[in-house]
Amino acid sequence: MSLLVTGSIGIDTVTSPFGRAENVLGGSAVYFSFAASYYVPVRLVGVVGEDFPADFRDLLGTRRIDTSGLEIRKGSRTFRWTGKFEGDMNEAQTVEVDLNVLAERGPRVPSQFADSSTVFLANTHPTLQRELLSQLHSPKMVVCDTMNLWITTEHESLLETFRKVDGVILNDGEARQLTRRTNLIDAAEAIRELGPKFVVIKKGEHGALMVGIDGPVALPAFPTREVRDPTGAGDSFAGGFLGYLCSQGNMSHETLKMGLLRGTVAASFTIEDFSLRRIERLSKDELESRVEKYTRMLRFDAA
Amino acid sequence: MSLLVTGSIGIDTVTSPFGRAENVLGGSAVYFSFAASYYVPVRLVGVVGEDFPADFRDLLGTRRIDTSGLEIRKGSRTFRWTGKFEGDMNEAQTVEVDLNVLAERGPRVPSQFADSSTVFLANTHPTLQRELLSQLHSPKMVVCDTMNLWITTEHESLLETFRKVDGVILNDGEARQLTRRTNLIDAAEAIRELGPKFVVIKKGEHGALMVGIDGPVALPAFPTREVRDPTGAGDSFAGGFLGYLCSQGNMSHETLKMGLLRGTVAASFTIEDFSLRRIERLSKDELESRVEKYTRMLRFDAA
Repeated sequence: MSLLVTGSIGIDTVTSPFGRAENVLGGSAVYFSFAASYYVPVRLVGVVGEDFPADFRDLLGTRRIDTSGLEIRKGSRTFRWTGKFEGDMNEAQTVEVDLNVLAERGPRVPSQFADSSTVFLANTHPTLQRELLSQLHSPKMVVCDTMNLWITTEHESLLETFRKVDGVILNDGEARQLTRRTNLIDAAEAIRELGPKFVVIKKGEHGALMVGIDGPVALPAFPTREVRDPTGAGDSFAGGFLGYLCSQGNMSHETLKMGLLRGTVAASFTIEDFSLRRIERLSKDELESRVEKYTRMLRFDAA
Repeated sequence: MSLLVTGSIGIDTVTSPFGRAENVLGGSAVYFSFAASYYVPVRLVGVVGEDFPADFRDLLGTRRIDTSGLEIRKGSRTFRWTGKFEGDMNEAQTVEVDLNVLAERGPRVPSQFADSSTVFLANTHPTLQRELLSQLHSPKMVVCDTMNLWITTEHESLLETFRKVDGVILNDGEARQLTRRTNLIDAAEAIRELGPKFVVIKKGEHGALMVGIDGPVALPAFPTREVRDPTGAGDSFAGGFLGYLCSQGNMSHETLKMGLLRGTVAASFTIEDFSLRRIERLSKDELESRVEKYTRMLRFDAA
């Protein structure tokens, strides 16, 4: 099984009540790749500008991340995002965004990646998501994310993308906006009627809800006081989730559940420090130890 | 072990997007008693007016609820509450409230109840909570609830009550208001510094968080599409929680965890229909079957 991700690769500046990080590595595909690389090698497809720091490329090279699909486009500039977290830290406020190279033509999937079995289409224009998907031979598991902007402005195109994927990961606000249902199980079922076999709704500090053929599964977030920068939590969640699914090679109910657990734990590390700092120094043993701790928290032996 | 509860007993009128129930039985002590009675007999202490319908008293009599501490006060009227739920149904809006008999002197604890081992002081004026507590010989487990009003207007008295209890159950908004901490584990730890050994924070559709000596435990709500009337969910939660604790006779980490599970499941039934309608027809077998389903949802055998 081989996992391909395509999404943004960017330079972030983030402020939270716990500090500020300027011009650090970010982007949905980056967070996803780091989290997924604990389970399977990752094929990264994305485009940056010629201003993309060599250090950042080196950092990607420290993991099982194949960057041969990373295009460094001459004459273009890398995507930049400036955001801040306040109050309950559940949602980022965008201070400034420069799409730069992301507003140009999309990246190409290298021919040696065309046989990828598992694909994550991180949030981007839904038409571009399908374009990328069409370059793959016959993926077995395709999951996409989206955002409020496309729900509003590209509704039909988004539905077309949903018809081509096995699973959708999105947050609670997006699920409600898309379906106009308040109850999140209702919202997830409404999205499943559009095509996907399963829907994962991310609820930030409140955990996640998954609805598949075998009914709903709700999990809490890993309870922690260490929350410095939630940037990338959702993409790390997706990385842990789909990395695990890819390693198992199936989408059974039990595998999806365990994927949720792995996604939850990945996100819990990402938020502990700015940018990728925490996950950069995260060992597989530390990861497994938290998986065990979280599993034990949810275990009721006497029942 | 014997469980005593004191709190409101009222006549409610509730509107939600799913209908309306007029002049139905309600009140914190009532919801608590029904949920707790699945685990232990309950001693109910409260006061109503002479308008309290005989039907309601009969309904209490269908369970293991000892109503010899229920005072029917001549010349007084029963507490009445009118509320509605809208949107995400997470919080009730109070349309009208008539304290009536609750604004008069509190009820007395009958002498045959003075030996109660376990006590739940449902939300009421914190001074009244202590008055009731002082009528008991030497309870082993005392848990209280509170509300935003007392946090604002009776802060010192509330802290005095907190010094006398083993555990506090309150909702997320109240925990944040009381402690001015955003992170809920921080908030719970701040409350523990005031005296209680454990704090349970109720988060409505997002589940519950408990912080005791052995660190935090987070649990999701039982995922359900059946949400018609959340009135009493928090008190049913407390009833399932403390009823279970009383049946076990200890406050160990594992017992507290299992109590959270029992509280979560009790609340999930209460919200399925208006007033006590669902829990009225709930068998012990149905309850245990959902406990098993919820436990299975949270079990990760392969980890």
